[in-house]
Amino acid sequence: MVNRTICIFAIHTKKMAKRTRIKDLLVSSDFGKQVSVMGWVRTFRNNQFIALNDGSTINNIQAVVDLNSFDESLLKRITTGAAISINGEIVESLGKGQRIEIKVNSLEILGDSDAEKFPLQPKKHSLEFLREIAHLRFRTNTFNAVFKIRHALAYAVHKFFNDKGFVYMHTPIITASDAEGAGEMFRVSTFDPDHIPRNEDGTVNYKEDFFGKATNLTVSGQLEGELAAMAFGDIYTFGPTFRAENSNTTRHLAEFWMIEPEMAFYDLNDNMDLAEELLKYLIRYAIDNCGDELEFLKNRLLEEDKQKPQTERSEFDLLTKLNFCLENNFERITYTEAVSILKNSKPNQKKQFKYLIEGWGSDLQSEHERYLVEKHFKKPVILTDYPADIKSFYMRMNEPDTEGRTTVRAMDILFPGIGEIVGGSQREERLEKLEKRMEEMHIPAEDMSWYLDTRRFGSAPHAGFGLGFERLVLFVTGMTNIRDVIPFPRTPKNAEF
Amino acid sequence: MVNRTICIFAIHTKKMAKRTRIKDLLVSSDFGKQVSVMGWVRTFRNNQFIALNDGSTINNIQAVVDLNSFDESLLKRITTGAAISINGEIVESLGKGQRIEIKVNSLEILGDSDAEKFPLQPKKHSLEFLREIAHLRFRTNTFNAVFKIRHALAYAVHKFFNDKGFVYMHTPIITASDAEGAGEMFRVSTFDPDHIPRNEDGTVNYKEDFFGKATNLTVSGQLEGELAAMAFGDIYTFGPTFRAENSNTTRHLAEFWMIEPEMAFYDLNDNMDLAEELLKYLIRYAIDNCGDELEFLKNRLLEEDKQKPQTERSEFDLLTKLNFCLENNFERITYTEAVSILKNSKPNQKKQFKYLIEGWGSDLQSEHERYLVEKHFKKPVILTDYPADIKSFYMRMNEPDTEGRTTVRAMDILFPGIGEIVGGSQREERLEKLEKRMEEMHIPAEDMSWYLDTRRFGSAPHAGFGLGFERLVLFVTGMTNIRDVIPFPRTPKNAEF
Repeated sequence: MVNRTICIFAIHTKKMAKRTRIKDLLVSSDFGKQVSVMGWVRTFRNNQFIALNDGSTINNIQAVVDLNSFDESLLKRITTGAAISINGEIVESLGKGQRIEIKVNSLEILGDSDAEKFPLQPKKHSLEFLREIAHLRFRTNTFNAVFKIRHALAYAVHKFFNDKGFVYMHTPIITASDAEGAGEMFRVSTFDPDHIPRNEDGTVNYKEDFFGKATNLTVSGQLEGELAAMAFGDIYTFGPTFRAENSNTTRHLAEFWMIEPEMAFYDLNDNMDLAEELLKYLIRYAIDNCGDELEFLKNRLLEEDKQKPQTERSEFDLLTKLNFCLENNFERITYTEAVSILKNSKPNQKKQFKYLIEGWGSDLQSEHERYLVEKHFKKPVILTDYPADIKSFYMRMNEPDTEGRTTVRAMDILFPGIGEIVGGSQREERLEKLEKRMEEMHIPAEDMSWYLDTRRFGSAPHAGFGLGFERLVLFVTGMTNIRDVIPFPRTPKNAEF
Repeated sequence: MVNRTICIFAIHTKKMAKRTRIKDLLVSSDFGKQVSVMGWVRTFRNNQFIALNDGSTINNIQAVVDLNSFDESLLKRITTGAAISINGEIVESLGKGQRIEIKVNSLEILGDSDAEKFPLQPKKHSLEFLREIAHLRFRTNTFNAVFKIRHALAYAVHKFFNDKGFVYMHTPIITASDAEGAGEMFRVSTFDPDHIPRNEDGTVNYKEDFFGKATNLTVSGQLEGELAAMAFGDIYTFGPTFRAENSNTTRHLAEFWMIEPEMAFYDLNDNMDLAEELLKYLIRYAIDNCGDELEFLKNRLLEEDKQKPQTERSEFDLLTKLNFCLENNFERITYTEAVSILKNSKPNQKKQFKYLIEGWGSDLQSEHERYLVEKHFKKPVILTDYPADIKSFYMRMNEPDTEGRTTVRAMDILFPGIGEIVGGSQREERLEKLEKRMEEMHIPAEDMSWYLDTRRFGSAPHAGFGLGFERLVLFVTGMTNIRDVIPFPRTPKNAEF
């Protein structure tokens, strides 16, 4: 069988340049035209109607076979999941919900799919189940839509920055530095764990390791990005970053992608303007380029909502939520103002917050961020000027306020449902202040003299931010588990595929 | 001093939206217009002429200060590498080689640069020296040009595939599988090397590691890419890949970026067509969008060549070489034909090859590839149908030839000066043949049942290739050491910055 199929295929390859993608076909009006289509069978009804999908669009083309013209043995092999090649004529469809269909002249099975064994049946599967077969979930409508939108957003990121003259920098993945001075890291090594070279005092002899020192997976490309910004002016990174945190939540991944622009001669206001412009551009791009996918996901969410009690249903549908972010200016307030709002808020007064706001100084929790965005301002919020104590060493120090409290020029952008989607700051460009702060925070300056060099030689005000790409995709697709918006999620105890 | 500078800057921030990038300024004709420019001093001649660069272009703007209008103490701080902010008037330039310049009205030092200590002086530095200060080399013309071209090529990759409807897939970086069944890998772990958990028999207990099993850095996204292609049709990856090979050469990196398209319903001819189209598109894009940078690098190479004896000089200049690739169809020949050409070639007959071609079966060396491209065909060459024994398990098996020799549907694209720039194949889509070959090559099928599922459920002919991004940048920029085309190279004993 295999040989026969392949032999037929060999003939087909000559015509392959003419294979029409279903996405193009669905908008065609060339009735009567002969076309060749290849794809995977979604359903086969009444031994007559094939719903065929080739991945180019979430939508299927209907291919109609005259059951009398084909062997029963062939028809039996048209099962859900099978790959087939069709030649046929574009005709107007009489069926509901479709404009055109294909009248099949010839049909070949490229690859069978045993209906008894194929895990994806034409019914609704749970996202949990689909996560276990992540290699096959791409063939569902939901994940076709999610990953098409992910693609569109990634492309839009590059287009946005390229059009503005930013330089895309590939900052290193393997690094000997700990950019944030925080975060648990993955070690990278070529040591055989059974034969780790040791120094005389018994400590590990990293000089013998591949890079001659202890190395990790990067947690951020920011510090290297700053080096480049101090030469190119405007740069951005878009690459994988890693956290070895043992957090099994719907919001955390051990491996995720991050976008980190860094701009010379920018202050915090410029930084906020750029971040807001970027987010709106990306959402707008998805709306303009992924209409079918967003419509599908919107309806999927509405269906899901119907299963929930009235009180737990979403206030807005997906598209309304996206448009809502486009139409509003993001509210910009300081941490100090936010604390004051939260302290006087009803959930704080009524002790409904899990973590009550007692006063100034501690970090805000997700419940507080969501209150500000979803209840108080009812729009995206940018919080600025956080207490220095809860932020990173490289953020620009403000003068102490009238009460002697020290803040830094940080900003976090908070989105409905998601919480923090962007975190950034103006960087500390003053050498002495930076060195003092690094000393206070026990960050070894000797290992980072390359970073300090940017402050020694032609330092300038500069700023940047990080946008968690999966958080963005989560927001735009309306999915609720971050494992459903990255092709092959890496989480504690899980590195399948 | 620091405070004063900053205070001045604070006033400037209000005008920052109006900062004009030097790239835009140099094409402006708004003579008489007041502009604000910020950047780094490249040179300061005669206490009068500042060559200022802000990274937006390889070209500097000349800013002319009236030395009588400024304090000597200020003028002394206009040193190479200092960051300054200028307000002034656009005027026609009387100087040679520039159309416009800025007549400076006010000037502020944003960040000093101690002339005694700043490592980049206005003279030619060796690439070796610059590699040691990779955090500052971005501020040289050569590296400005190289990384602008790198950016343009990366953007063009995304544009090419997006325009064709391909889906960008982020395949995993941390993986438990060894895609190529070859290549030394970096281990990824959160184990403390001083306290590695052990099983009762003394072996490492990977169940206790972060992912619950032994994990590595990926050597290729291909296998995961195939999973996605069998759902979306056309996909590509563009991400970092890793090889823990102890090769200290001008062509190898431990961490490098790779582009891997994978297409359902493609055979090897379609695959070659796409790869050739992609390479030509990328080269064309660089020529169209990086004229200044390529011109600079071309002249740099010509200067370098002058230092060499006549016989070692390049046959073509950089732009001629690039155009040469655009104008020629890539020569497509089988491995078997190539071996026959090489066997009868002069350098083989005269025993000038280091590795003499004795007959069919062994892999070709760089000297052979270069002979074919540079001497025999004088154009890029695509070699196909290599002996199965020297290629990977996933490549589609051909029927044995008349002499009983077995080849696979592989293809390598060879470029002048570079050798292999693309490697790809049609994939083995037939389950039994693939399983048989995996068994022969001792690849454990039980660990890869997800991969085999694509052949179990709706298998279809498909193909793909890998393009080493740094090899491409090396080719387009004419640089000769791969460490000079990635921002922060990772090589044995080197993970600086």
